[in-house]
Amino acid sequence: MEDEPATEILHATYRALCDHGYANLTVQDIAAEADRSTASIHYHYDDKDQLFVAFLDYLYDRYTERLADVDEGSPRDRLDALFDVSFDDGPDGPQQAFRTAMLEVTAQAPYDDAIRDRLAEFDELLFEQLRETIADGVETGVFDDRVDPAVAAEFLTATITGAHTREVAAGAPSDRLYAALTEYTERHLLAAGSTGVAD
Amino acid sequence: MEDEPATEILHATYRALCDHGYANLTVQDIAAEADRSTASIHYHYDDKDQLFVAFLDYLYDRYTERLADVDEGSPRDRLDALFDVSFDDGPDGPQQAFRTAMLEVTAQAPYDDAIRDRLAEFDELLFEQLRETIADGVETGVFDDRVDPAVAAEFLTATITGAHTREVAAGAPSDRLYAALTEYTERHLLAAGSTGVAD
Repeated sequence: MEDEPATEILHATYRALCDHGYANLTVQDIAAEADRSTASIHYHYDDKDQLFVAFLDYLYDRYTERLADVDEGSPRDRLDALFDVSFDDGPDGPQQAFRTAMLEVTAQAPYDDAIRDRLAEFDELLFEQLRETIADGVETGVFDDRVDPAVAAEFLTATITGAHTREVAAGAPSDRLYAALTEYTERHLLAAGSTGVAD
Repeated sequence: MEDEPATEILHATYRALCDHGYANLTVQDIAAEADRSTASIHYHYDDKDQLFVAFLDYLYDRYTERLADVDEGSPRDRLDALFDVSFDDGPDGPQQAFRTAMLEVTAQAPYDDAIRDRLAEFDELLFEQLRETIADGVETGVFDDRVDPAVAAEFLTATITGAHTREVAAGAPSDRLYAALTEYTERHLLAAGSTGVAD
């Protein structure tokens, strides 16, 4: 996956997915977006399914990198940064179109083990980062020691997932939710008297 | 929609949806489940889309009734009952199969205005019941008066939605989440010194 053409194809897959959605996505669409022949796509990937799993792995690597960038600052700062990453697809992201397609992929997961395994990895990664950040906050006394990091991380993972589902399916804007996450952090997680901001 | 045969067809749609998923569901499947001819289904509904919208309306009516039953007891009791309704599909529900199919329907919403409108209604109904219950708790002093009912309801609606998505797509069991909802209620919503239980 280090070679340039394969990466180009994955970038084209991203754009084609945003344009066409998942159910209607064809190797032809991806080839057109990459300005290549379908034969040259098939040189790298046997079929759409194999290409798509490679695409999910690529997204996972990008996601890992973005979450890994959130390793500096106080637990409160890192938690805020995790929320930012969760509600922003990056500068190249036509957010709504991508989320719409990814919800189709999510609905496909129960019928496709390869997709399901990847989505479970995404879920686990977000959960673990949240859990570690909250545990760090509890240990250092910034967060309330009555908070169970795993329970809070479970809660926040569900909330972030649900915000994405609702935005796509019911047109519920996620900015109000973002405000609610901040309130949750301040009232539920922070220890009494702490602002969570590093001195 | 008062007549018996139409209701029978909607019951059969529920069972066929659980068995076949949404994408693969046909009028033939529903006819087989109802032990009727496809012609007799078409007597009531022009096509699968029209039948399915009627099915969503039927689910909405049932959901409204179940939520309306949650009108007794203290705000804390009613909130718990809303969580129960949200995590239990009723005695006749093969829960996981139904949720799997409904996630497919959810992913279809951006491409289908009739489905999208119905799902937005479901979302709004849950949000409103949560908001009213929390507002009632704040007004009567059971819940902390720093809680903004709309913000908390937004948060909980996202959390419940996300718990369903994660259960289907990533195999995350929703029982841990249920514990987190209880913790959230006790630590975030209840006024200091209140148990929320009516005397």
